[in-house]
Amino acid sequence: MSRNPSSNLLSNPLSIGERRQRLRAVLAGTECISPASVYDPLSARLAADAGFEIGLMAGSIASFTTLAAPDIALMTLTELADQVRRITRASDLSMIVDADHGFGNALNTMRTIEELEHAGACAVLIEDTDLPVRHAPGRSGGELISLDEMVGKLRAALAARTDPSMVVVGRTASLAEGIAAAEARVKAFEATGVDAIMVTGISSIDEVEAMVATTSLPLFVGHLLVKLAPKDFAVAGVRVLFQGHQPLAAALKALWETYVALRNGEPTAALVAAPDDVARLVRSDAHREWQQEFLPH
Amino acid sequence: MSRNPSSNLLSNPLSIGERRQRLRAVLAGTECISPASVYDPLSARLAADAGFEIGLMAGSIASFTTLAAPDIALMTLTELADQVRRITRASDLSMIVDADHGFGNALNTMRTIEELEHAGACAVLIEDTDLPVRHAPGRSGGELISLDEMVGKLRAALAARTDPSMVVVGRTASLAEGIAAAEARVKAFEATGVDAIMVTGISSIDEVEAMVATTSLPLFVGHLLVKLAPKDFAVAGVRVLFQGHQPLAAALKALWETYVALRNGEPTAALVAAPDDVARLVRSDAHREWQQEFLPH
Amino acid sequence: MSRNPSSNLLSNPLSIGERRQRLRAVLAGTECISPASVYDPLSARLAADAGFEIGLMAGSIASFTTLAAPDIALMTLTELADQVRRITRASDLSMIVDADHGFGNALNTMRTIEELEHAGACAVLIEDTDLPVRHAPGRSGGELISLDEMVGKLRAALAARTDPSMVVVGRTASLAEGIAAAEARVKAFEATGVDAIMVTGISSIDEVEAMVATTSLPLFVGHLLVKLAPKDFAVAGVRVLFQGHQPLAAALKALWETYVALRNGEPTAALVAAPDDVARLVRSDAHREWQQEFLPH
Amino acid sequence: MSRNPSSNLLSNPLSIGERRQRLRAVLAGTECISPASVYDPLSARLAADAGFEIGLMAGSIASFTTLAAPDIALMTLTELADQVRRITRASDLSMIVDADHGFGNALNTMRTIEELEHAGACAVLIEDTDLPVRHAPGRSGGELISLDEMVGKLRAALAARTDPSMVVVGRTASLAEGIAAAEARVKAFEATGVDAIMVTGISSIDEVEAMVATTSLPLFVGHLLVKLAPKDFAVAGVRVLFQGHQPLAAALKALWETYVALRNGEPTAALVAAPDDVARLVRSDAHREWQQEFLPH
Repeated sequence: MSRNPSSNLLSNPLSIGERRQRLRAVLAGTECISPASVYDPLSARLAADAGFEIGLMAGSIASFTTLAAPDIALMTLTELADQVRRITRASDLSMIVDADHGFGNALNTMRTIEELEHAGACAVLIEDTDLPVRHAPGRSGGELISLDEMVGKLRAALAARTDPSMVVVGRTASLAEGIAAAEARVKAFEATGVDAIMVTGISSIDEVEAMVATTSLPLFVGHLLVKLAPKDFAVAGVRVLFQGHQPLAAALKALWETYVALRNGEPTAALVAAPDDVARLVRSDAHREWQQEFLPH
Repeated sequence: MSRNPSSNLLSNPLSIGERRQRLRAVLAGTECISPASVYDPLSARLAADAGFEIGLMAGSIASFTTLAAPDIALMTLTELADQVRRITRASDLSMIVDADHGFGNALNTMRTIEELEHAGACAVLIEDTDLPVRHAPGRSGGELISLDEMVGKLRAALAARTDPSMVVVGRTASLAEGIAAAEARVKAFEATGVDAIMVTGISSIDEVEAMVATTSLPLFVGHLLVKLAPKDFAVAGVRVLFQGHQPLAAALKALWETYVALRNGEPTAALVAAPDDVARLVRSDAHREWQQEFLPH
Repeated sequence: MSRNPSSNLLSNPLSIGERRQRLRAVLAGTECISPASVYDPLSARLAADAGFEIGLMAGSIASFTTLAAPDIALMTLTELADQVRRITRASDLSMIVDADHGFGNALNTMRTIEELEHAGACAVLIEDTDLPVRHAPGRSGGELISLDEMVGKLRAALAARTDPSMVVVGRTASLAEGIAAAEARVKAFEATGVDAIMVTGISSIDEVEAMVATTSLPLFVGHLLVKLAPKDFAVAGVRVLFQGHQPLAAALKALWETYVALRNGEPTAALVAAPDDVARLVRSDAHREWQQEFLPH
Repeated sequence: MSRNPSSNLLSNPLSIGERRQRLRAVLAGTECISPASVYDPLSARLAADAGFEIGLMAGSIASFTTLAAPDIALMTLTELADQVRRITRASDLSMIVDADHGFGNALNTMRTIEELEHAGACAVLIEDTDLPVRHAPGRSGGELISLDEMVGKLRAALAARTDPSMVVVGRTASLAEGIAAAEARVKAFEATGVDAIMVTGISSIDEVEAMVATTSLPLFVGHLLVKLAPKDFAVAGVRVLFQGHQPLAAALKALWETYVALRNGEPTAALVAAPDDVARLVRSDAHREWQQEFLPH
């Protein structure tokens, strides 16, 4: 944490509108960026201090950190929106928020958009998986909702948005059913007027190129089944690549090692951030200046 | 994270009542323990998996992680209680909760006790500092509320408690005003009927011994101004020693290094927990068993 | 509001355990009671002051008052649990809580039970309708989930309960599919071990008697399609009868008339409760006594 | 509830920015308006349907309805902001929000402004009383914070605001200390740059005129100690007059009468709103149209 955070972060952060424009610029550009996977105010602020401009609140990570539960749609919309708001007030990342299935049907999706827009999201992902799962693991098929139902959700999402600069992303897991199925979904999603498409489960660069060829919209990819270089995604026309959730996994490893060391009476000095870095991270100086400025002497 | 968590953690955790009895047993014992400093469901679960039985939600750490703000009483009681509840539902640590000044006057302290008891706290600390600060930094004196006011808060706290097994701790920062002042406060606190006393700002073993000699109640110490061995505290009669907040500081260091590595395109494999460990931490197996047990096949 | 509320309501309310026992006694008795439909702390307190011991937080009313939206599963579990908690802390009604479909699949139902038990519910209703609706209004059929799925939800609910005195009620809308269908569901619900059954859509006393004959469990009825005397339900063996939501409808009428009068500059004295009654309702005396008792003089 | 609510309320409400401009127009005008006292989504919607454009969330009413407790600063900022947000999402009233003492010192006041601005408040009142009270009732004096401290709070509030169209109101209870004291406070408040002043405890029209003469800012008055005609306030130059909280008091009276009637088995038909009016109030038609539009057929 040696890098100096922008000194005016608290007193003059980017407005939510400016953050949405920044994300829109990425989508309109020619690069392929990977957002920082963040999950609470401090992780978001560290990511911003490290140079990230775009953040991602993934559904899995939200469930892990809020409920200590796996990614099986146990978290409520209220919990997600509260956590997104905590993040957007503490850092000026442009936040992409994974809203799973929109927390129900198309009307729940409207409410999802409303609450996440209010919480300061810059982009909201709505996906076509049938959540929470209806059947025990092992049963094949039935994981996707019908295209008809999904198109209704996306149209509802767009109708519920009040700031047209917030990005609505239609996300599909249909590649598991073949390229033709995915192409049909991508085209139908685009026809609703959404701003971007996300395709998960990519297993080859050919699939990426097929998806890019199918739509004129910016493409997000994630949950890759093969390892491809980010550069290849840029060349292929992908704008946003989800690269996993190393930050939380690193924090967990450090926490574990620290608890074990403390338990064993071993030193922890090498494991921890310096007090000054922590103080800087929570903007102690800015708060002290406000105390000097606004409290009686 | 190689240690096996107790396999029945979710399906049969300790009840809140049992956790309170466990903490009471520590206070009635002859050891001096240090609670694990935790701040969210996963940190609490890791601490429990590492062998800790007692956890601490410190006011500073709560403010850092919820608001990304320093420890200056900006957090609301609602935010603190919600976070404590998230922790107590995800692990079976016996949680000590730092409730600062009780979030206002004696009646706010009653509400503080009510909300934290409901959230599953096993012990609640109420301190005699005047929060939030009235004056700009640098002005000396005036940091403590009157003994009269503090005694009222502690009596109110005890009246508001509905489960008598929950521990109410009177915490004093009065050592800064000398041993005589601290002794007077400790005696007055004990006379209210609180279950334990915490003294901060210890600068010598003599002070510890003076405090122990002043009261028959279990003693907590923290915010030490000198380095003393935990063993010395046990010998002196201290039951709970706060040893700082290395876990969050370690997580922040790991997050920073990971964001920098990702930003620079460097590998992160050495920094992160194994996927299996993360899956175990969020109890993926238990949830899958529930899916097999309760969802249609 | 002329009736004197119990003077010790705040300082010594019934514990949640005692409230659950009180509801269990009703279910084990020979009367048929109707709970008070309540929706916030003050309505609950008024109902208790008027002599009600059992309260009902209906799904429709929760949606109306929290979201100003119709009863179409837009409310989150977090919002419902928070509202139930606000009610249980302010009055000592034994609360029956309508939890719709358990907010998702069987695992969401587990979380529903966990959160509502923590909020102080005495009984939780889980119903077999497919919510939120999948299709536009007008399409017939498909409103019920399969019996298999519903049985899984009820078994999951029972597994998630930690206080066995909390009542889990299996609720079915299957009478719309005929008596035979309803009988099959009631028997299957009973076999899971739930504590009571609720049947909605009753259109004759014969149907009531058929349901009572089908199960040895206490029966709840509601959403009646015919008008029957409460006495007839008692004789038939029903223990709990939902009689609609007049209280909120009365409050809305009074609010409307008051806003219109204020808008027109007309007097409102005849419409409003006396200030003393309002002061008594918010327990001004008890709080003043606490101020005298616990604040410095 | 016979008046037709605006049919497009949900699909096209006023934006928060437009509501703030509407309130600003009132403050810049020559009328004296009284806001509708509202406390939840339905009361706000009824007030709007009855023709009110400006609403008031009073501190007392917020405490009554959320906690069933008197107006003694027991409610948290989180609870207030959540309730304001529920109101602003369900109606398009321009909301004036009473934020008491700013929930602590000047830095807490900054957070108060931040949270209430985010919740959609159009005006926030910050007052110069010392809350929560430090001493038991009956002790005279000490109810006001120093002018120095209050000026710091108002300057902090203005610094924390990100939308300059949101109105910050400095409220003073200093008339109890005489006109000269009040004049000094009003002038000092104006010098901070706040947008309006509120004076409570008016006991004569002379006092009103003295206050108007003291400042060029729009004046709010409330908590009157004498009965004066609204017209007189307009002539005197007052822009906003708080006239009490009849709506909640009317709802409580109606609830009480209804619970008593239900308890006694008496009819309630004359007490309650018609089902169609309730359905219209929760916008059943709009939601049904969305179901037709966005759900599969």
